[in-house]
Amino acid sequence: MYLPEHFHEVDPDRIAALIAENPLASVVAQTDSGLVANHIPLLAGKERELIGHVALANDMHRLMADGHEVLAIFQGADGYVSPNFYPSKANHHRHVPTWNYEVVHVHGQITFQHDLRAKRAAVGLLTSRQELRLNGDHGWRMADAPADYMETMLANIVAFRITIHRTIAKSKLSQNREAGDLRGAIDGLRATGNTPLSEQMAARATGSAKPDA
Amino acid sequence: MYLPEHFHEVDPDRIAALIAENPLASVVAQTDSGLVANHIPLLAGKERELIGHVALANDMHRLMADGHEVLAIFQGADGYVSPNFYPSKANHHRHVPTWNYEVVHVHGQITFQHDLRAKRAAVGLLTSRQELRLNGDHGWRMADAPADYMETMLANIVAFRITIHRTIAKSKLSQNREAGDLRGAIDGLRATGNTPLSEQMAARATGSAKPDA
Repeated sequence: MYLPEHFHEVDPDRIAALIAENPLASVVAQTDSGLVANHIPLLAGKERELIGHVALANDMHRLMADGHEVLAIFQGADGYVSPNFYPSKANHHRHVPTWNYEVVHVHGQITFQHDLRAKRAAVGLLTSRQELRLNGDHGWRMADAPADYMETMLANIVAFRITIHRTIAKSKLSQNREAGDLRGAIDGLRATGNTPLSEQMAARATGSAKPDA
Repeated sequence: MYLPEHFHEVDPDRIAALIAENPLASVVAQTDSGLVANHIPLLAGKERELIGHVALANDMHRLMADGHEVLAIFQGADGYVSPNFYPSKANHHRHVPTWNYEVVHVHGQITFQHDLRAKRAAVGLLTSRQELRLNGDHGWRMADAPADYMETMLANIVAFRITIHRTIAKSKLSQNREAGDLRGAIDGLRATGNTPLSEQMAARATGSAKPDA
């Protein structure tokens, strides 16, 4: 990834927050069938790893042997930034448009897990995290479903872990602009309906990490 | 990509709309430096091609020779769907969570273009499209900037085209659910703040393509 130093995100809290808030990763690999991508919600594990699961019918676990190199891409808010947003444009007109975004690239090696314990853990972790966020104390639990049904469901998936060997993150949020133009871009994006990107830029500008939503 | 038939998106208008509404692609390639991804707004050209540009400082055009295979991934709204959203859950509890999303995968071959005409066209097309959307008749134009400044800017980019040889699209929007549960998921997502996904699901359910925003 092209990564000018001023856009290089090195704050581990912001990197973890981007993954937690945008868990649907594009998991990409080069295989004998060419470049393959699957879209899978992933969780950061306790070690340097990502945890996920896919349907057993998904060819992923047949196209890739254990140890296969994968790239998991997590993406946050994004949007076009018009030169019209910059107050200084009126003075010198020396601006061009750009596109802001936040991404995290995780490079690692995938290992598939067919044992029930790993599968139950992968599903349980993802579910409890998302149910807590959406439904609080009234969240759905695996125990709500009949045991025979859950067994069938678990028999039809495969869990996996990605052992991380490199993480690269980019926060392209106009932080290289002078203060007035940055403020103008934040206001302009909000005024034109891109609240998610505007909020991320404002949080980055004040140095406050946006809490895990 | 794992693609059950009921999630296979074959409507060319919906595929074109997803790209137009979510132009920031993850452009992925296998290179001598391993898997590389860059995040680049792309436009569908008149032929079966995607048009983009990157900074000359971006190694992409040095890591890939003309004709290199790339995968451009476009992604729409996404989100976790709780079993609690389904009214039929109360009857039989035979539901598990899922993750909804819409993606388009474009496989093709990239060719870089260093000539001024191609670069001006790539920048001009993207800019006019985005400015029209954001600023209407008051949009920024390349002619707003001083000529010497624009020349320097254009000297610092490289344009490219991706000649498309395969497009695969997936709309995973609960369209495989019974009507009441689909409606419950749409309402549940809206009630818990995921309006973008809720709207895409509602549009898909009524068969209306969401207009290019």
